[in-house]
Amino acid sequence: MSNHIKKIKLSLVLLATVAVLAGCGNLQNSGLSDGESGSNTNSKTSNYQITGTTDGTQYSALLSNGKYKVSATRGLLTDQNANKFNISSFESGLTTLSKTEFSPKKYAFQEGQHISRTTANNWLARQSKSNPEGLNPVDNGKTDPSTRNPIYLQDILEQDYLVRKGNSYQLGGVAIGLGMNKVDNYRKEKYGAVYKTTISETAREQQAKSIAEKILSRLRQKKALANVTIVFGLYEQGEDDSLVGGTYFATAVSKSGTNIDQWNTVNEKNAVLPVVNNEKAINDGDSDSFDNFKSKVQSFFPNLSGVTAQVHYKDNKLAGMNIKITTQFFGENEIRSFTQYTDTAATQYLPAGIPIEITISSVEGMQAFLNRDSGDKTFYTHVFGSY
Amino acid sequence: MSNHIKKIKLSLVLLATVAVLAGCGNLQNSGLSDGESGSNTNSKTSNYQITGTTDGTQYSALLSNGKYKVSATRGLLTDQNANKFNISSFESGLTTLSKTEFSPKKYAFQEGQHISRTTANNWLARQSKSNPEGLNPVDNGKTDPSTRNPIYLQDILEQDYLVRKGNSYQLGGVAIGLGMNKVDNYRKEKYGAVYKTTISETAREQQAKSIAEKILSRLRQKKALANVTIVFGLYEQGEDDSLVGGTYFATAVSKSGTNIDQWNTVNEKNAVLPVVNNEKAINDGDSDSFDNFKSKVQSFFPNLSGVTAQVHYKDNKLAGMNIKITTQFFGENEIRSFTQYTDTAATQYLPAGIPIEITISSVEGMQAFLNRDSGDKTFYTHVFGSY
Repeated sequence: MSNHIKKIKLSLVLLATVAVLAGCGNLQNSGLSDGESGSNTNSKTSNYQITGTTDGTQYSALLSNGKYKVSATRGLLTDQNANKFNISSFESGLTTLSKTEFSPKKYAFQEGQHISRTTANNWLARQSKSNPEGLNPVDNGKTDPSTRNPIYLQDILEQDYLVRKGNSYQLGGVAIGLGMNKVDNYRKEKYGAVYKTTISETAREQQAKSIAEKILSRLRQKKALANVTIVFGLYEQGEDDSLVGGTYFATAVSKSGTNIDQWNTVNEKNAVLPVVNNEKAINDGDSDSFDNFKSKVQSFFPNLSGVTAQVHYKDNKLAGMNIKITTQFFGENEIRSFTQYTDTAATQYLPAGIPIEITISSVEGMQAFLNRDSGDKTFYTHVFGSY
Repeated sequence: MSNHIKKIKLSLVLLATVAVLAGCGNLQNSGLSDGESGSNTNSKTSNYQITGTTDGTQYSALLSNGKYKVSATRGLLTDQNANKFNISSFESGLTTLSKTEFSPKKYAFQEGQHISRTTANNWLARQSKSNPEGLNPVDNGKTDPSTRNPIYLQDILEQDYLVRKGNSYQLGGVAIGLGMNKVDNYRKEKYGAVYKTTISETAREQQAKSIAEKILSRLRQKKALANVTIVFGLYEQGEDDSLVGGTYFATAVSKSGTNIDQWNTVNEKNAVLPVVNNEKAINDGDSDSFDNFKSKVQSFFPNLSGVTAQVHYKDNKLAGMNIKITTQFFGENEIRSFTQYTDTAATQYLPAGIPIEITISSVEGMQAFLNRDSGDKTFYTHVFGSY
């Protein structure tokens, strides 16, 4: 899950030109309208553009009238998530799952346009007389953590994938992410104490699969979605007080119809380093590597404050690290020297072969960053400057 | 003035090993101690290390006992500068000037260790009976902007450059930056209104050169500095309310003795785009390019807020741009798409062949950044992620 957009090359051609090349079947030749049409912003011919070209590992996004088409549920994820890391990993994880079915070489990305904000809110609420569409269980009147019906479904996310058809784009597929609670935080009365219902893995999985089938039936009733491929991703929400987001645990593809025949397990884990409170690290070797890096980096300045990492595991193997270093700086050369030092220490101590992002910040914001993509041997380093 | 540290390769060898290779005459083979000495932190043999290796265009910094040796005047620049951009450009500009005399291939960097904070404060103050060393003129008792003696010298900066000598490092040269006021802001009484004395270019230059010779004489009296090469850089401070820092306007080298025979002019300018209040851009073509980029980028989102740039000119040619984009985001894919779009627009509209840094931030901090170094054709792009 690399965070960086590589480009092999960048071709900037008017869509008018692209139309001539229609049929070439991928997105490599389109780009932004170069603005020659001046004030004719309503010109029909430039209605479709994409954000840019990629090397085929990342999606280009479709623009509508030169503007980014925001999600029909824009802001919903922010509202539903006390843990901000969920917002990012829920979204980017669904995009990653989608790549298997909708190759970025052929498909362009667009935020979900088919589930409205009202619909999403109704679906996320409990089922009731006034809300028969609610996908969470009815309120059974109980307030005890173990006897009440918890909120299983916390989030819904739609992503659309489009293919070029002559001079425009057509919906080619949809991906639906379901954010399932591991713990449901609730209050017995407004502003009262927060209680927690813990949801078992079995219950979470069972509920998620059943909800996915209900959603599939509803989506198939929409004319635009009746025959497109729909990818489902089931996501376990990171807990509210966690310093990492959650992970996807299952995925399925529906080519047509309203049944999901097969679910595939996704084996991912997120955690934070250093481990605290005698917790056990997912992998002791990785944890030791990080500790060595951390103490090396912390020896640089007398008053260095924090070095923490988010670690991501896939099929029980370390698949990425995001390291945050916070410290105080008094000048450009201190930052520059510290960045160089961090580069050396990271290359020396951190596990090889996995993507690693390191940010270095002070109270004034980010001062420098280092990044190594999967497969790279050295870090790209950058110190933010000014004139 | 590239802000990024390129590495050709990274060799991590104990200094003990380096000692064997002594005499190889450059820094390429040294690195961090790998920590094998464990708790023996006082071991004399590992007293000197450098932060890492570079491609020879940037300095490595010398570490002392594994720690960064902070400046003897640490924090002084922050105290003296209402305009924070001065701190960065004053420092990095002096380092750039130093490269001509002290090649990064041969010299390592260390923060200035020979002018103490007390000395610097005395030098920066007015000359008086109690402070005979003051380098700013005596208080002539007048308070009128045009008749009073202004504060000419606002800042002093020392940087040290070291060369390896067998198993340790020796001082090889010193660079001294003098931050000269263009405008001296002062108060007639404590907490009173702020008045401004504008200092002419001629007066600024004359004062700076005279102060530099005084400082040279004083430094030559120190045993450690009696015979080393001393580089001077004269810097015009950016004004307090400016959105860019100042620039260097002259430089000189003293190999020995207490006289400066020759000053060389440095022709640099900083400015902000877009131009406002009917001000004139330094170069209309560059300003137009930026405006085109800006309006293209602003068309992406309905509610995009700000696109501004710092531009840097050297010998009347555009030598760099630092662009800040601030906007609101609701998700990872919005940021990712916007970054891709910005990449395409920057490549299409911004001047080629110069270093350009673009940061994209929301209220939550930096979300993405793009960077193109001098000589590169494409932008490196990175979206900050999390797990």
